Amino acid sequence: MRAVHLASGSVAIREFATPAVPPGFALLRLRLAGICNTDLELQRGYYGFEGVPGHEFVADVVEAGDAAWVGRRVVGEINLACGNCVWCERGLGRHCPQRSVLGIVKHPGAFAEYFTLPIANLHEVPESMADEVAVFTEPVAAACEILEQTEVEPGTKVAVLGDGKLGLLIAMVLRLHGAEVDLHGRHPEKMAIAAELGARPCKKGEAGGTKYPLVVDATGSEEGLAAAISLSEARGTVVMKSTVARPVSVDMASVIVPEITLLGSRCGRFEDALPLLSSGRMPVERLIQAVYPLGEASAAFAHASRKGTLKILLRP
Amino acid sequence: MRAVHLASGSVAIREFATPAVPPGFALLRLRLAGICNTDLELQRGYYGFEGVPGHEFVADVVEAGDAAWVGRRVVGEINLACGNCVWCERGLGRHCPQRSVLGIVKHPGAFAEYFTLPIANLHEVPESMADEVAVFTEPVAAACEILEQTEVEPGTKVAVLGDGKLGLLIAMVLRLHGAEVDLHGRHPEKMAIAAELGARPCKKGEAGGTKYPLVVDATGSEEGLAAAISLSEARGTVVMKSTVARPVSVDMASVIVPEITLLGSRCGRFEDALPLLSSGRMPVERLIQAVYPLGEASAAFAHASRKGTLKILLRP
Repeated sequence: MRAVHLASGSVAIREFATPAVPPGFALLRLRLAGICNTDLELQRGYYGFEGVPGHEFVADVVEAGDAAWVGRRVVGEINLACGNCVWCERGLGRHCPQRSVLGIVKHPGAFAEYFTLPIANLHEVPESMADEVAVFTEPVAAACEILEQTEVEPGTKVAVLGDGKLGLLIAMVLRLHGAEVDLHGRHPEKMAIAAELGARPCKKGEAGGTKYPLVVDATGSEEGLAAAISLSEARGTVVMKSTVARPVSVDMASVIVPEITLLGSRCGRFEDALPLLSSGRMPVERLIQAVYPLGEASAAFAHASRKGTLKILLRP
Repeated sequence: MRAVHLASGSVAIREFATPAVPPGFALLRLRLAGICNTDLELQRGYYGFEGVPGHEFVADVVEAGDAAWVGRRVVGEINLACGNCVWCERGLGRHCPQRSVLGIVKHPGAFAEYFTLPIANLHEVPESMADEVAVFTEPVAAACEILEQTEVEPGTKVAVLGDGKLGLLIAMVLRLHGAEVDLHGRHPEKMAIAAELGARPCKKGEAGGTKYPLVVDATGSEEGLAAAISLSEARGTVVMKSTVARPVSVDMASVIVPEITLLGSRCGRFEDALPLLSSGRMPVERLIQAVYPLGEASAAFAHASRKGTLKILLRP
């Protein structure tokens, strides 16, 4: 089978043996996958990654110990947890210290014709949902994680920094939750997508002194955190969603004096994301910029890396 | 009257007029004051400070619109709030955007024979409490602030980083609250003070892989935050208590992947600190390293700046 292979920053297509299916696992055949900023960071050397990337996908189950799963169309949680530790017992397998992570840590990813995941990680996709919508389940879950970590009352004023893929999804999720969202970005045509749901576009740097009780940094840039801190009111919360490979500089006093809370935020629950996508209220398909054949992954990565590109998908 | 004057890093004694007493204010005559790390940071250029520093004190009221206060021995909250804004209405005058701060922002401080504070900021000191105990009210309140910001169940494992003045007070306060405190420091003789209350001394860097749900960075150093993050378990909380003048470098992934909460923490409520000090259970007097006459403030600052020095007091 063919899969994307990432090593020392270069993206290539290679032939691999179809992966073996351990007990409790399913063999999945890719239908559609999405390139995430984390994949681009992996390419830049984050985690010293080498292997098959890819963790946003929709796929068909072609083999599984539990035959009931065979033939189903699925999305899947990306953290492969041990199932036995205190974290797993708390339902927080995504923090299991023994975990591997699909396409990120010690488990070959979804940019492949075939790949595996534990059956426990799978969620069936409703029949009515297009692949082009289902493929957004993982990043929408990451957006939903904010609501899992901090209480957001309807009507809360929120600033979302960054009008890239994740920023738009976060603006949509918070908006659908009832928050008053100001989306701070640079690209009117992108901010217009979230504006459909009522998120107010704010040209970057034109907040005019407004402060927010909740600010989300989804800029993906080294300057994003300081900008988010400066927009937070005293005792406010800044959600950190920008995985930047290089260290970021923070003025301690800017956090300590106003007693701001900085909240690291990563993966979320698919159980929260699927109903939102099912509802048809999230215009995620408008985020799709291009679909490449898997065999042209190198060009797809190059396109995704270009500044201002929204979602690039890969189809086997 | 004489007061300490700080400008461009140098500490001098100057003659000033006794300050006028605006309506609602009290004129205070200093009994005893403490030099805080913030004062040393002000000397190093934090806030571009120039003026009379000092915010840890115990004093006598010598003049006040409300005559009932005259003659009382008091400590005082350091934030001078407007009293009318949404923050003041929430009882959070210490975040009032209009505030000045005793000896730090736009209000002459307590390293002076006489100084002023609003009557609303004053708390009478119980008769049985020595000046040498009462002078710790402000830093003990800052330690208590942690309990105001995050819930700490009795039995919670906490790492306190730094065996300086604030680290020891934080270790004591958390210990008295019922937490299991590991105090990470370098100085066995200092850690012994908190060990009296059952805080376990941990030689710096010898945590042996232990992770904690709550970590407090009171190192006052640029390396403290990264060390605290590395000791936090997934979904843990790191309390930031180190006001360091220079920017600090943070690895975003080390916060985002384990979804750690970083909590900026500053001043606290005197109402929480006074009963703790009254109880006699906090051996704060053991933190006093030396008492200097106010006129020798320059030598006192030099002593306080020496690595490993505990509390230096000033007496007029």
